[in-house]
Amino acid sequence: MNDHGEKQTAFEICVVVPRTTVKKEDKKCDCVEVLVKELKNVGFIVDRALGLTDEFIKLAAPLQTLGKAAAELQMKKLTYIGMDLQFEWEEVKAFVRQPDGSLFSWCERFECYHHLLYGIVNKSKVDAMLKWDSKEYLWEVGESLMLRLESAGIVKQVFPLHVEIKRKELLGSWVLNWRNFTNQPIDDMYSYFGLKIAIYFAFLRMYTRWMLFPAVYGVIIHLVDFGSLQFLVLPVFFISIILWAVLFFQFWKRKNSALLARWQIHYSASAGQGCKFLGMEWSSLQSPLELVKNLGIDKVKEKEAYQRHEWFGYLMRFRNNAIIILSIICLQLPFELAYAHLYEVMDSDVMKFGLTAAYLVLIQYFTKIGGKISMKLIQYENNENTEYQADSLVYKVFGLYFMQSYIGVFYHALLHRNFKTLRQVLIQRLIVYQILENVLENSLPYLKYSYKKYRAVRNKKKRENQPSNVKIQFNSKVEKEYLKPSYSASIGEELEDGLFDDFLQLTLQFGMIMMFACAFPLAFAFAAVNSFTELRTDALKLLTMLKRPVPRAAATIGAWLNIFQFLIVMSICTNSALLVCLYDKEGKWKIEPGLAAILILEHILLLIKFGLSRFLPEEPAWVRANRVKNATQAQGMYSKQLLKSISGKGKTFGLNKTM
Amino acid sequence: MNDHGEKQTAFEICVVVPRTTVKKEDKKCDCVEVLVKELKNVGFIVDRALGLTDEFIKLAAPLQTLGKAAAELQMKKLTYIGMDLQFEWEEVKAFVRQPDGSLFSWCERFECYHHLLYGIVNKSKVDAMLKWDSKEYLWEVGESLMLRLESAGIVKQVFPLHVEIKRKELLGSWVLNWRNFTNQPIDDMYSYFGLKIAIYFAFLRMYTRWMLFPAVYGVIIHLVDFGSLQFLVLPVFFISIILWAVLFFQFWKRKNSALLARWQIHYSASAGQGCKFLGMEWSSLQSPLELVKNLGIDKVKEKEAYQRHEWFGYLMRFRNNAIIILSIICLQLPFELAYAHLYEVMDSDVMKFGLTAAYLVLIQYFTKIGGKISMKLIQYENNENTEYQADSLVYKVFGLYFMQSYIGVFYHALLHRNFKTLRQVLIQRLIVYQILENVLENSLPYLKYSYKKYRAVRNKKKRENQPSNVKIQFNSKVEKEYLKPSYSASIGEELEDGLFDDFLQLTLQFGMIMMFACAFPLAFAFAAVNSFTELRTDALKLLTMLKRPVPRAAATIGAWLNIFQFLIVMSICTNSALLVCLYDKEGKWKIEPGLAAILILEHILLLIKFGLSRFLPEEPAWVRANRVKNATQAQGMYSKQLLKSISGKGKTFGLNKTM
Repeated sequence: MNDHGEKQTAFEICVVVPRTTVKKEDKKCDCVEVLVKELKNVGFIVDRALGLTDEFIKLAAPLQTLGKAAAELQMKKLTYIGMDLQFEWEEVKAFVRQPDGSLFSWCERFECYHHLLYGIVNKSKVDAMLKWDSKEYLWEVGESLMLRLESAGIVKQVFPLHVEIKRKELLGSWVLNWRNFTNQPIDDMYSYFGLKIAIYFAFLRMYTRWMLFPAVYGVIIHLVDFGSLQFLVLPVFFISIILWAVLFFQFWKRKNSALLARWQIHYSASAGQGCKFLGMEWSSLQSPLELVKNLGIDKVKEKEAYQRHEWFGYLMRFRNNAIIILSIICLQLPFELAYAHLYEVMDSDVMKFGLTAAYLVLIQYFTKIGGKISMKLIQYENNENTEYQADSLVYKVFGLYFMQSYIGVFYHALLHRNFKTLRQVLIQRLIVYQILENVLENSLPYLKYSYKKYRAVRNKKKRENQPSNVKIQFNSKVEKEYLKPSYSASIGEELEDGLFDDFLQLTLQFGMIMMFACAFPLAFAFAAVNSFTELRTDALKLLTMLKRPVPRAAATIGAWLNIFQFLIVMSICTNSALLVCLYDKEGKWKIEPGLAAILILEHILLLIKFGLSRFLPEEPAWVRANRVKNATQAQGMYSKQLLKSISGKGKTFGLNKTM
Repeated sequence: MNDHGEKQTAFEICVVVPRTTVKKEDKKCDCVEVLVKELKNVGFIVDRALGLTDEFIKLAAPLQTLGKAAAELQMKKLTYIGMDLQFEWEEVKAFVRQPDGSLFSWCERFECYHHLLYGIVNKSKVDAMLKWDSKEYLWEVGESLMLRLESAGIVKQVFPLHVEIKRKELLGSWVLNWRNFTNQPIDDMYSYFGLKIAIYFAFLRMYTRWMLFPAVYGVIIHLVDFGSLQFLVLPVFFISIILWAVLFFQFWKRKNSALLARWQIHYSASAGQGCKFLGMEWSSLQSPLELVKNLGIDKVKEKEAYQRHEWFGYLMRFRNNAIIILSIICLQLPFELAYAHLYEVMDSDVMKFGLTAAYLVLIQYFTKIGGKISMKLIQYENNENTEYQADSLVYKVFGLYFMQSYIGVFYHALLHRNFKTLRQVLIQRLIVYQILENVLENSLPYLKYSYKKYRAVRNKKKRENQPSNVKIQFNSKVEKEYLKPSYSASIGEELEDGLFDDFLQLTLQFGMIMMFACAFPLAFAFAAVNSFTELRTDALKLLTMLKRPVPRAAATIGAWLNIFQFLIVMSICTNSALLVCLYDKEGKWKIEPGLAAILILEHILLLIKFGLSRFLPEEPAWVRANRVKNATQAQGMYSKQLLKSISGKGKTFGLNKTM
């Protein structure tokens, strides 16, 4: 056990407080000193580092401290018998270790840190007086110290710290490993960044690899002339692309559950939206249960309470979705169409440029408003946990982006009914979008960081009246890290982190290339190049340019998977429409048999799309076999033992249950 | 416990052997006597009744005998802590009782009976000699007595017996209860007929009730003239019917899981096809596992073995489906079209009649061949249990029936493009089909029964040389029951019972009315009447005209649900096509906007169909809350206890697991 102890004691959390010079006699009441003392009491290893204007309290937790917190949190962990049981420090040997040898995963550790930090309360019987910078703050009995200090503005930020050794290891084995381009040390990523980011990169890697097929296919179609069979090329391409996409996502689901099995996370993939981690689900269902407690143990009333709660939830969700959809159709659609139309009818290039600039400013504003409204609406939904809330937000915001990105292209496609113009628009969008996004994504964090650094130095100089040509060095790494931007979403930080933007970019691009596949097969080659660079730059960004992200325990890519599926269905329809336009325009076919053929094709593809998921299960057989084996083994071993203890109490239980 | 003991001792199983007169001295070796002796040894209560030509050995099992068998079978049963544990007779108090107060459900009892009956083996060290009717049979060491006697033709049949008291109770409270027409004593049905039949009747009842809405709507459309809005009536009807159907099946899934919760059967509905009862699933996965045992504990090889097994299974299933689909398209489709076309072009009614007669004979023959081929093909699939096999059979055979029933109607619809002719064909089919089916369904069993009775009496008379005018009375009820036909499927008895025919009738009718809803809205009224009579006659048939069916433990309506869903999708497409034909024909609309509108409508409906199931979970919140509560409670109670015993063994486990 102790051989892993050393690894655990890396400093992983940092609390930022302003730098002050405290006199000796004030030490007892100074709130930073009190905080440090309490942190030490809890069991943290504390290291203080002074920065230019702030002080950084670095925290590390020995295994025992974490274990205590996990037991308090009643954390469920996998044991060797294959069952998830509540963690207890005394029985630590029964629990399975992570692939990297540590007892807790990074998600679990973070949860423990959070619990410990915010669990520091005033346990004495009188309110304590804290001083800071000659101001006094009251720390009430039972109040959390961290929350008090945060509200007073003394604790500026709490953020996870990079672990330098592991970061460098990852940098070497992952980002700077040029031998095997799409190779990823997936286990290391999991243990360093947590589940959700590891899943994202696994997805991105599989996506990039699978993207090679349509990219090559698209290039071939673009270059080769098939002579008399040319009229068949696009329908065949259409069919193969759709099949490719459907198969890709079905295999992704299998890959996802294989990954979860690899990291020994119990999550029933086939249940889909139905059940997250059992523990989570349960805690989330307590709201109606509390209701029930007041009603006594009347089964019928309990059922009714649940049903009311459930249907009220659907009603709210329906209302919210209706609001969002209506406002998208009634407000955003006319706006987007107006822009597309104005752009089309204007003659002068200067006017066009001005219009586009105004449009770009306006949509920034609009999406922000949209995001805020969605956030407000979501709070009225009784989503079961934050990951569901995040999913709900993603659906709503994606609606906005969908309209924004595609309505212009649709307009052009319908207006011109000309593949050349459509292709030009697509190339324009794809290339501009890709280059702009990649440049912004990678330069913005660096610029932000530089600006913050510059400001920090300037402030320092101002305060100390130093001449501006004296160079000030950052003497602590932790200060540099503090100045780095965090991995946050563009639409608000409450529910989503930077993964939102990364996934959004991926889905919008996927939609663009899939929905207009027949108009521009070469787009897949662009997309392949793009997702390949994305794979590298995202990794680089995470490891060098940003703070270490807060780990999230979501086991799938969540809402994005459904959005991808939706885009496939959309692309079946739009490509059929494109084909009709194409063959109608060129007049080679009569409309009658051609239209009928395309319609039948569309329906068959839709059938395949929805049918395939029934025939290819989302969980590979060996994963399921493992899961079942574990469960059966566990039951078999302890069945008798359990039975004996129950049957003694059977009668009293019976009374409670069968009434 | 003993207060329920009396109920348990009803005679529930009957073994039929030929009637013989045995001399006293032969009693020791006579195989019937040996059988009876062994049955008594096992713990059965045996009652022998003499019939005209056969002897009936009625068996009842006291609770203790059943309990012993259940423990031997390692049956999993729900305990009061909400966990399924292996049954043990000593800890009987820990297990939850059925709603009717008995310990075992009828399915479980039947399984125990079966295990006890066929578990009688020759335990002595020498082969025993059995005599019957002066012939001698060798009963080898370790051979099952029942199997030996069955292969020798001495045991003619083993069938479940009706329990007269309960049967009469059900008859009164269900079939002859004319007050509340669709009311059903669902709990009694469950405890008398077992899970699958109870689920069928619950489905049929809900279907009948929901059918009232479209029936009334159809009648209104038929009778009322909407004036200038007439052209909108059919599209609106189309939309509402589709929504109705989609909602119905979504609510049925919820109802289904509510029923399972009521009977305390653990079945994760959200997992759908993924996981049946845990125990079953496990036992079925052992085939590749045995492979693995030979390979040692190499994890990678184990995974590969599973993957090979899984993909081989898909390959076989794909091949089988391809064979079936191809043979339906290449063989059946031309045949059906030929019939429809010949019928159309023939002038004389006599010829038409002859053709139809020949056709009817031929299709009987064809479906039998189809069923046999399907059965053969299925044996090569590695379906996980018999219910999956049955589902696979249902899909394949339904393909045949689908072509048979609808291709003629499609032909007429396409050929004539005339709603009047189509309506006539539909009326003809619906009424003829309904009346014929209902009459056949209810008279055939009675006719069969009468004929068997007549033959039995005649045989008896022949043997005893009595004059034909002497009346012979059946003196035992059990003999009458023996002569009743069993509840068996028309396509072979191995995998399906009579539910196959009942469901087939329901789905074919549902497809007929849904797919041509726009052509003939009144059809729903016919269907409502039909399903209402069905509800009554099926119950009557089961309770009075047939042997008690063998109980089946399937927790859902299985493949039929998917077939219904498929028919909804089909009906979205066909109705769209019908609407196009309609408005194209009558020329009120131009084809351009009309066609586009219908196509958009179709796509929106398809989207709703597939989208809704995502937003309305298949399991009501209160069912899930209950399930989770039970699991959590169970874990919470025994978590510590389990942990302690594991952590002691942790190290050895760790060695096995982490390698």
